[in-house]
Amino acid sequence: MTEPQPKQRVLITGAGGTIGTAIRRHLGDRYDLRALTLTPQDFPSHVADVADLDAILPAFAGVDAVVHLAASPAVETPWEDILPNNLIGTYNVFEAARRSGVGAVVFASSNHAIGMYELDGAPSIYELDDPRVYDHTVPVRPDSLYGVSKAYGEALGRYYADFHGLRVFCLRIGAVRAGDDPTDPAVLASSPALLDLPDAETRRQRMRAVWLSQRDCAQLVSRCLEADHVDYAIVYGVSNNPRRFWDIEHAKALLGYAPEDAAPV
Amino acid sequence: MTEPQPKQRVLITGAGGTIGTAIRRHLGDRYDLRALTLTPQDFPSHVADVADLDAILPAFAGVDAVVHLAASPAVETPWEDILPNNLIGTYNVFEAARRSGVGAVVFASSNHAIGMYELDGAPSIYELDDPRVYDHTVPVRPDSLYGVSKAYGEALGRYYADFHGLRVFCLRIGAVRAGDDPTDPAVLASSPALLDLPDAETRRQRMRAVWLSQRDCAQLVSRCLEADHVDYAIVYGVSNNPRRFWDIEHAKALLGYAPEDAAPV
Repeated sequence: MTEPQPKQRVLITGAGGTIGTAIRRHLGDRYDLRALTLTPQDFPSHVADVADLDAILPAFAGVDAVVHLAASPAVETPWEDILPNNLIGTYNVFEAARRSGVGAVVFASSNHAIGMYELDGAPSIYELDDPRVYDHTVPVRPDSLYGVSKAYGEALGRYYADFHGLRVFCLRIGAVRAGDDPTDPAVLASSPALLDLPDAETRRQRMRAVWLSQRDCAQLVSRCLEADHVDYAIVYGVSNNPRRFWDIEHAKALLGYAPEDAAPV
Repeated sequence: MTEPQPKQRVLITGAGGTIGTAIRRHLGDRYDLRALTLTPQDFPSHVADVADLDAILPAFAGVDAVVHLAASPAVETPWEDILPNNLIGTYNVFEAARRSGVGAVVFASSNHAIGMYELDGAPSIYELDDPRVYDHTVPVRPDSLYGVSKAYGEALGRYYADFHGLRVFCLRIGAVRAGDDPTDPAVLASSPALLDLPDAETRRQRMRAVWLSQRDCAQLVSRCLEADHVDYAIVYGVSNNPRRFWDIEHAKALLGYAPEDAAPV
């Protein structure tokens, strides 16, 4: 007889957000999830600001892995919020993980770390037969200070992986939405202003290109948590959308990512 | 008859440091140099902390280009200094340049943005016949928070180049030393502790691999200031040392860099 494996203890920062909520829903049975949030929630959570290292440290005690989602999530976020929430906060999370002996960090990076490829390619990049695909080897080309903060988090993660021995996974996440429906008109209205998409049809095409379903997002996070053979990875978080222009072959080959969803054509 | 070209007005941040002093010495006749320093100097300077955007802005008025050297320069710099001096300071310099209509920024990045390749390869990487060469296309692998801050500066520069139209040059500088002598025993003693080099001979070999002479450094900065055809570049700053393991072919081809110096074998 074999003993049942104890569940991994996984701390989710920003656990009350859209992605945090999806992960708690889909992975709550599989892992021993703990939460860190900026404000009190209707579920148990360590309430602290990621910009305060001392305040977040207790949440890392006894944790096997961290999924770091806490950040200002909007591409338009000004420097005054990027600095504490994304730059300082991400350092504090990696440093707290290191000090606490956490084995792995899954970092919510963003497609906006390379968003200039899309800006240069829009709107034709959204067309069904457009051949462009950007993978984890392209040079970073942030489209915003938000995107810069994610490129920084990837570099910081590489340092903590290489120098301190944490395993680090950077997910360049597409568009995860609360309603989980890439055809919802309200979702289409949320296209980043910086893209300056000319019309509703283009916004429709874009969302169908960049959508990541909640269960595919949760699956990708889970694949990272199980990937004991990987020291560092950058992968894209996108469903198997016919219009997608980010690579998923690397996530398939390295992590066994097998998206179950695809936005409509 | 042609009018003489007016000299470019070039602001040097950190103008009192080792590299700033070398640039003032070698390029003072060719450009209309202005200085920004943290403390008063024995030359005219706008005295302000790069961590204070409002305080540095006046120094950018009427400037054609900025050479951004101001930062905590030591690889061992702790987070408490990296944050204001390197992360916030570099944002402030790019932002001040953008707001002031400056055309180009030459950013003093560092080999430490990719320092893990050296750490992995030492000490054999310093040997004369070692074939390894790292170029501008390798993924960033910082060896320190200092190195992370330089990778961040490169990503930030890419954003300001792509999105805001500045021309940006990131120089992954090797070792520029006040005495300009790569065989000086005092210089050898300054090898970064994190490299943990086993003996004096290895430290000697390393300095002869990574040395950048002051006039080669100044020449490389000048090549950037003249490179109107380049929107963004990452190049290594290293003299033509027989033991070097960073690429200079890209700087030669793109910028016309032609190092005049080489450390002894």
